[in-house]
Amino acid sequence: TRQMSKSNDREEFVRTTLRELVVYILFLIILCILTFGSASSSMYYYTKVLSDLFLDAPFPETRNTFRGSTQVLDIWRFMENVMEDGLYWEHWYNPEKTPIETDDRNILYENKLLGIPRLRQIRVRNDSCEVHADFKNAIRQCYAVYSDNAIDKQPFGLMNGTEWTYNSPEALGGGIPYWGKIATYGAGGSFADLGSNRNITNVILVNLRKNLWIERGTRAVFVDFTVYNANINLFCVVKLVFELPATGGVVPSWTFRTVKLLRYVTGFDYFIMACEFIFIFFILYYIIEECIEIRMLKCSYFNSLSNVLDVTVILLALVCIGFSIYSTLTISDTLEKMLRDPTKFADFEFLGYGQAHYNSAVAVCVFFAWLKLFKYISFNKTMTQLSSTLSRCAKDMLSFAVMFFIVFFAYAQLGFLLFGTQVYDFHTFLGATFTLLRTILGDFNFHEIEEANRILGPIFFLTYVFFVFFVLLNMFLAIINDTYSEVKAEIANQRNEFEIGDYFKRGYNN
Amino acid sequence: TRQMSKSNDREEFVRTTLRELVVYILFLIILCILTFGSASSSMYYYTKVLSDLFLDAPFPETRNTFRGSTQVLDIWRFMENVMEDGLYWEHWYNPEKTPIETDDRNILYENKLLGIPRLRQIRVRNDSCEVHADFKNAIRQCYAVYSDNAIDKQPFGLMNGTEWTYNSPEALGGGIPYWGKIATYGAGGSFADLGSNRNITNVILVNLRKNLWIERGTRAVFVDFTVYNANINLFCVVKLVFELPATGGVVPSWTFRTVKLLRYVTGFDYFIMACEFIFIFFILYYIIEECIEIRMLKCSYFNSLSNVLDVTVILLALVCIGFSIYSTLTISDTLEKMLRDPTKFADFEFLGYGQAHYNSAVAVCVFFAWLKLFKYISFNKTMTQLSSTLSRCAKDMLSFAVMFFIVFFAYAQLGFLLFGTQVYDFHTFLGATFTLLRTILGDFNFHEIEEANRILGPIFFLTYVFFVFFVLLNMFLAIINDTYSEVKAEIANQRNEFEIGDYFKRGYNN
Amino acid sequence: TRQMSKSNDREEFVRTTLRELVVYILFLIILCILTFGSASSSMYYYTKVLSDLFLDAPFPETRNTFRGSTQVLDIWRFMENVMEDGLYWEHWYNPEKTPIETDDRNILYENKLLGIPRLRQIRVRNDSCEVHADFKNAIRQCYAVYSDNAIDKQPFGLMNGTEWTYNSPEALGGGIPYWGKIATYGAGGSFADLGSNRNITNVILVNLRKNLWIERGTRAVFVDFTVYNANINLFCVVKLVFELPATGGVVPSWTFRTVKLLRYVTGFDYFIMACEFIFIFFILYYIIEECIEIRMLKCSYFNSLSNVLDVTVILLALVCIGFSIYSTLTISDTLEKMLRDPTKFADFEFLGYGQAHYNSAVAVCVFFAWLKLFKYISFNKTMTQLSSTLSRCAKDMLSFAVMFFIVFFAYAQLGFLLFGTQVYDFHTFLGATFTLLRTILGDFNFHEIEEANRILGPIFFLTYVFFVFFVLLNMFLAIINDTYSEVKAEIANQRNEFEIGDYFKRGYNN
Amino acid sequence: TRQMSKSNDREEFVRTTLRELVVYILFLIILCILTFGSASSSMYYYTKVLSDLFLDAPFPETRNTFRGSTQVLDIWRFMENVMEDGLYWEHWYNPEKTPIETDDRNILYENKLLGIPRLRQIRVRNDSCEVHADFKNAIRQCYAVYSDNAIDKQPFGLMNGTEWTYNSPEALGGGIPYWGKIATYGAGGSFADLGSNRNITNVILVNLRKNLWIERGTRAVFVDFTVYNANINLFCVVKLVFELPATGGVVPSWTFRTVKLLRYVTGFDYFIMACEFIFIFFILYYIIEECIEIRMLKCSYFNSLSNVLDVTVILLALVCIGFSIYSTLTISDTLEKMLRDPTKFADFEFLGYGQAHYNSAVAVCVFFAWLKLFKYISFNKTMTQLSSTLSRCAKDMLSFAVMFFIVFFAYAQLGFLLFGTQVYDFHTFLGATFTLLRTILGDFNFHEIEEANRILGPIFFLTYVFFVFFVLLNMFLAIINDTYSEVKAEIANQRNEFEIGDYFKRGYNN
Ligand SMILES: [Ca+2]
Repeated sequence: TRQMSKSNDREEFVRTTLRELVVYILFLIILCILTFGSASSSMYYYTKVLSDLFLDAPFPETRNTFRGSTQVLDIWRFMENVMEDGLYWEHWYNPEKTPIETDDRNILYENKLLGIPRLRQIRVRNDSCEVHADFKNAIRQCYAVYSDNAIDKQPFGLMNGTEWTYNSPEALGGGIPYWGKIATYGAGGSFADLGSNRNITNVILVNLRKNLWIERGTRAVFVDFTVYNANINLFCVVKLVFELPATGGVVPSWTFRTVKLLRYVTGFDYFIMACEFIFIFFILYYIIEECIEIRMLKCSYFNSLSNVLDVTVILLALVCIGFSIYSTLTISDTLEKMLRDPTKFADFEFLGYGQAHYNSAVAVCVFFAWLKLFKYISFNKTMTQLSSTLSRCAKDMLSFAVMFFIVFFAYAQLGFLLFGTQVYDFHTFLGATFTLLRTILGDFNFHEIEEANRILGPIFFLTYVFFVFFVLLNMFLAIINDTYSEVKAEIANQRNEFEIGDYFKRGYNN
Repeated sequence: TRQMSKSNDREEFVRTTLRELVVYILFLIILCILTFGSASSSMYYYTKVLSDLFLDAPFPETRNTFRGSTQVLDIWRFMENVMEDGLYWEHWYNPEKTPIETDDRNILYENKLLGIPRLRQIRVRNDSCEVHADFKNAIRQCYAVYSDNAIDKQPFGLMNGTEWTYNSPEALGGGIPYWGKIATYGAGGSFADLGSNRNITNVILVNLRKNLWIERGTRAVFVDFTVYNANINLFCVVKLVFELPATGGVVPSWTFRTVKLLRYVTGFDYFIMACEFIFIFFILYYIIEECIEIRMLKCSYFNSLSNVLDVTVILLALVCIGFSIYSTLTISDTLEKMLRDPTKFADFEFLGYGQAHYNSAVAVCVFFAWLKLFKYISFNKTMTQLSSTLSRCAKDMLSFAVMFFIVFFAYAQLGFLLFGTQVYDFHTFLGATFTLLRTILGDFNFHEIEEANRILGPIFFLTYVFFVFFVLLNMFLAIINDTYSEVKAEIANQRNEFEIGDYFKRGYNN
Repeated sequence: TRQMSKSNDREEFVRTTLRELVVYILFLIILCILTFGSASSSMYYYTKVLSDLFLDAPFPETRNTFRGSTQVLDIWRFMENVMEDGLYWEHWYNPEKTPIETDDRNILYENKLLGIPRLRQIRVRNDSCEVHADFKNAIRQCYAVYSDNAIDKQPFGLMNGTEWTYNSPEALGGGIPYWGKIATYGAGGSFADLGSNRNITNVILVNLRKNLWIERGTRAVFVDFTVYNANINLFCVVKLVFELPATGGVVPSWTFRTVKLLRYVTGFDYFIMACEFIFIFFILYYIIEECIEIRMLKCSYFNSLSNVLDVTVILLALVCIGFSIYSTLTISDTLEKMLRDPTKFADFEFLGYGQAHYNSAVAVCVFFAWLKLFKYISFNKTMTQLSSTLSRCAKDMLSFAVMFFIVFFAYAQLGFLLFGTQVYDFHTFLGATFTLLRTILGDFNFHEIEEANRILGPIFFLTYVFFVFFVLLNMFLAIINDTYSEVKAEIANQRNEFEIGDYFKRGYNN
Repeated sequence: TRQMSKSNDREEFVRTTLRELVVYILFLIILCILTFGSASSSMYYYTKVLSDLFLDAPFPETRNTFRGSTQVLDIWRFMENVMEDGLYWEHWYNPEKTPIETDDRNILYENKLLGIPRLRQIRVRNDSCEVHADFKNAIRQCYAVYSDNAIDKQPFGLMNGTEWTYNSPEALGGGIPYWGKIATYGAGGSFADLGSNRNITNVILVNLRKNLWIERGTRAVFVDFTVYNANINLFCVVKLVFELPATGGVVPSWTFRTVKLLRYVTGFDYFIMACEFIFIFFILYYIIEECIEIRMLKCSYFNSLSNVLDVTVILLALVCIGFSIYSTLTISDTLEKMLRDPTKFADFEFLGYGQAHYNSAVAVCVFFAWLKLFKYISFNKTMTQLSSTLSRCAKDMLSFAVMFFIVFFAYAQLGFLLFGTQVYDFHTFLGATFTLLRTILGDFNFHEIEEANRILGPIFFLTYVFFVFFVLLNMFLAIINDTYSEVKAEIANQRNEFEIGDYFKRGYNN
């Protein structure tokens, strides 16, 4: 009878878990509908056609492109040719060049430019760094690497207008600092709003160029605009950046944030809305459940990885719900304001930025939600065998990972110091780390490190491959292999417990 | 004596299997003759020279190519230059430009253009989607993503002729929907048949361009033609497609179906025909055999993987035989019709499509036929050891594969949601899956995912490589390794059975 | 005492082997001097500068190159621009274009053109294949794929001179058939010897072009010449080939055979000569040794892999010695003939071809000679452990390799049939095999096979990676792993034998 | 009590080691501050913008670049266009071309050219090699491969001035020989100092060109200059080299040494200086410690790998300290001299060379310092298990490595001899070795070796992959795997010793 009652307990346990599993799978399905429902491959093509248009179109004479820009002259070549061509579509393609009506002028015929684009630059002072005593006579001006303290807030050039004076970030509508390749730039600076047609813009640009708008102190030039495609109801918030490092030259970068800001337009959108409500109820349900559990288990609650996962998922979900509500409320306002005066700059930066991070948060949330499934699969015996192999070798793996990463980071530092001045892949310590990781997978450029240092380069590569790829990596395998043998031997000796499979079999037999 | 009778049974069994094996190998040889006989490396070169001609030839001014087309203007540049150059070869290469006689004008001097090419487009209505309330005033037209419901069936532009009206797929000869990169397009639309020489075609194209044939509603433009090379007796059914997604811009795609539609011309072709008859007899023989087996074993017949393989091979073979007969019968008709009036469009689409799928079916059939060989190699002891290792660890492998793929798909979804709007390799969920699979093999682009998301990109990559490449992948090895040790130990303890090798030895000794 | 005598025997054995080893190492050193002495990195740069000059120089208008040629027009563009520029260096680079003296006109200022270049083509008859009945009216000429039977031996075009008539291979000096990408071409055909300066050559080429020298039947056009660089005493025998497949279009190929035909010029060369004599004595010594062994062991001699290796090395060495003597004797003759009349074509094809194969034979010979070292390393205990692991698992490995290659070739055939008409890497069965091998190492192009077949392509890739990379490849590891454990356990239980190490230790102690 | 005293001993030992560890970690931190403090990602961008400017800018007509130069003409194209554009920035970018003041003319607006650039060439005699008897009449001049003996020290061309006469290395300021791709070139030769503005330089270059400065004997042309960026306080010592091999043609190479020669300018620099003093004290401390240890242990000191590491680190540190002091003292002198007369060539070669090697020495020093950490981690039990696995299998690994490398080098030699004349990756024996190593990781070019030898190429690849990748590589794994199992089994049977973890626990409990 004791056996029997134990078996009954087990059965009860299985039944409870099954119920939980079913509820959880429903939750997962809703979550997947939400995420896949708001993503579409149109988004990729939208980003692509716009980046083809601005980043890959060749400048007329030099056949260089935005991506390949290396000099100040390339900035002007880009702005006066490719950018103007890309922004203003005033004619059809036919030989007679039929003009397009003013309010039908869309980028690539389909994408409405919202408001007008804004050109902005940020400059540093000409005394922002110290010149070494020996050079004090020969070199009188020194423009530091960008930092907020070095910003030049004095007027320059023509000394008047927003183009030639400094405007604080607040005056510019409180933008977000831009994380570039060289530095993170503040949201202030001098700006020029371009025109609503090609002629006006060209006049503005020529004037800027003539008066040497970009000068030695310029550290970054930004072009900001937003387009909206009504066909697929997507916004693209575009930011094209030329960074001018203190070394001279130009380093281009960009962001194309393709986001769905108007969430509810078509019938399917309203179905998604329904799912969102169900999702909120699920989250409330799980919050209550976890609260109960926390009250019961107190501190020990956080000892279980699975509980930490639960809490993470819930927190992420709450953040997403919050932003989602905020965004739905504010977008209408912004749009209204912008559409009232289409000759002003339309600042979608914050909405685009927020939406992009919202999407990331949702993505991570779904990822963790999937991983939680592992909690439920431990019923099956072979599954147990595998997951217990993993958990048992975790300690050894971690110890080994410490050894592995000491060697790994020693190599990364060596690589950074030896090749960092010559090879892009090693130009930061973190970058060097990833480069070495990619080397293990077979993605590396031997000739570059050989060129950077013809003796130490090959030696570095050879010893790295030998110790890390031939020896250390195989240790991971040895650890797993050995643990698996042990676990399998143990489990083979165990008695079969009542399994989830049995539950179904019994239900089938009765 | 019991031992002896058992040995005799065994011998009998071996003898039967050997006979079966010999028959099977004959079958395989015939099958290989059939498939290799109808494939030749000429086919590859045929596809190559034609795609070089149309896809990679640069447009005169911009040096862009068909493959690199991104704008509507590129469509016209392609059609009025590269396409006309490629289709009409009216002069020799010498400085005097000796004209070539009209009926000797072949593409690349060797390939006869069958009939004339057809230009087709398919459009959607300007009210096919809903504009959000806020934009109703600013945006009055909305052209949806292509779908069969959104097709615009009204005349447009000049309002007359096949170019400016909608023609149903039936009116166009019942073509096959085209599966493009963005959508699957119906076979209807507006079309223009081009001319049989360069002048006529040029007039038609300029007229279309002048009257703005391609407009905002256009979702795809097709160019269809077929060429025949008598030297190597091959057809190439060419379809060049420009998709115009709702995002604006142009996405080019293409199919070059190089097929052998006239199957029996040379002496070798008739030898193949003989083999085909033998093949049919073999198939009949195997059908009968399997029928007998099914009658004997009933449902349990389908429990064996090897039997399922047999049935698959037979079914594929029957489909192939069927299409083969149909194609041989209809091709003459089509050719006759086409050759009677060479100024009409020659529609080889269905034949090309069918033949390509026929070739695929044959290929898969041969693949399965090879795999069936495994049924016969189990006689050798070491072989058994290996195949029984594989079959024994199959269960564990599958259990593990479930775990593996939960993690794998969780990563694929994460990658799709995080990078899908920026990176081609992640722009669909399925694509993301294959990208992650390729990452394991070392084919990935780290810089792209880093650019798409500078924080989550590297974290994604690092954790993926660590968990999947370092840990999970090694589990596969651990499972196989452990099972192999077990199996080897077991087999080493077994008594040697009468083997196929012994059979030959005995035959040799007597 | 028995123990002692056994130990003495063992010692004797060790002493003999050591002596053999020392002799063998001497032999290896001589061999290495011979091979490394006649190879230099100058050879690579010689090939490189010449191929840069002819293969990668852009044509003036189209910026295409020899490598990128796809049409008949590209042949003429190449010959009238890049080839003429490359062959005739009549001026210095300065603005006044100072002419260079006639007998100092060297390619790239350093390389003497030996004799004059030869242009040759080979054509097939216009009735060399059969046209299908349906097309008999529309298509009257059929030019088959190249084969020796299809060669057109009738005069054509201007009907006179070597350019317009067929010349047999014998009449042309008995050249070697050329193994191209499409076919293997005979050494006969129509040829034109170009001029010794740019003007003459240009007149010849324009005349050929004007009279349509290249016509539909042309299957290959060859340009042959030889250059000699006195600075580094190297010849480069150049052959530039345009194949014109029956599909139309052009497929370029080339050989640059950089060889050292004048073997003895500098002092170091005579040192090499001395080594060559020593080498011959070594070979004689080994021949005698092996003969004795063969007489002793009879047939069982060939059972040992190591003996087979010996014989192979000796045979290869004999072939090399033979050619070496022949070449040294004939080169002077050829040179003398050529230098007597520098306005004739200098045929170095056979010497270049032979020397290149001689180099290959030497390379393979050295490779096998190195492998023979394994015979001697079996003295050390740990070495034994490793080599006996390899030899013991050889049988299992082979059995498994059979299974592996059935699957492998089934996939190769599937890939060939599915993607062969579209993807270069699968366009022959053998090519497909290597493509699949490279896939295992991580070198593949997924997008190409996806484009070739959007459904079966990814399935093919997925199943291949799963079965071959995840499962079958790991079996190799499992086999080695298991065998190693066994062998190690066994050896740990063995008594230490008298080892080579002990021999040295004893010598050292006494 | 005995147990207790042993435990106390152990505790004592742990305490000592912990103290050592803490000191060592302090040392490591100082070291990291030093190295990371003097490296910055600005250095990479500095190298990049300069190499973009000189190496990747296209020549006006041919669109070729410095990197792609293959002919003598390209040298002039580079110097008269790209180099002049890059060195002299005399106008702003605006349409009116506002001139920049003379002492503000900076490369890329930011980088001061120090002194003036120097053009140098080195030539060999026209009788520096022997022509074969057969060619003695046809070829009268022979220019050997570069070697110090072959240098032509006679005047040439206009016969006067430094451009047309030979100057010994000493006369040129005692430079460092340049290790090029083809040879290592001496520091002497004929040189021309260019002008301080574009016009002067252009006159000099045209004059050189007109008088055929580069002639057949020229083996290398060097352009040397140094730029200084005050914004980031970095020097870049630039050397652009055209090697003219004896084969004809041109092989470009370059060095951009971005170094921080003025070490102490900003506040942070002085913090680094403080760290440097601390570092020196640490080194003194370790020197004393090691001296004591050496006195105690005598010869046996060097038996421990860890001690050898210590000595290496100390020696490297001493070298670095030495150079650091020397460089700080000499740089001021050099700068002063240079700034006094800005129209002379400023020779920073030795300082740049030294600083670059100093950086390498520091990097290696830090690397070894990190590895020494392993000495301390052996306290933890799982760590011991792993490190003892590695040390125990070291002997087997080495034995196996010998076998592995015999096969490996046999393949490298075969590859070098078979493909060396055609494929860059195999053009030296050492290069071939690395190519084969990269092949294991999946980075190879199959098509190149296939093209170089269509039969032996694929066979080479196939057998290499099979024996080395499938078989030998797996042996490494088998060895590690087996050893790990053994070690783990042993350790599991051991009694737990007092561990470092316990020490902390006790501290925590009391
Ligand atoms: Ca790889």
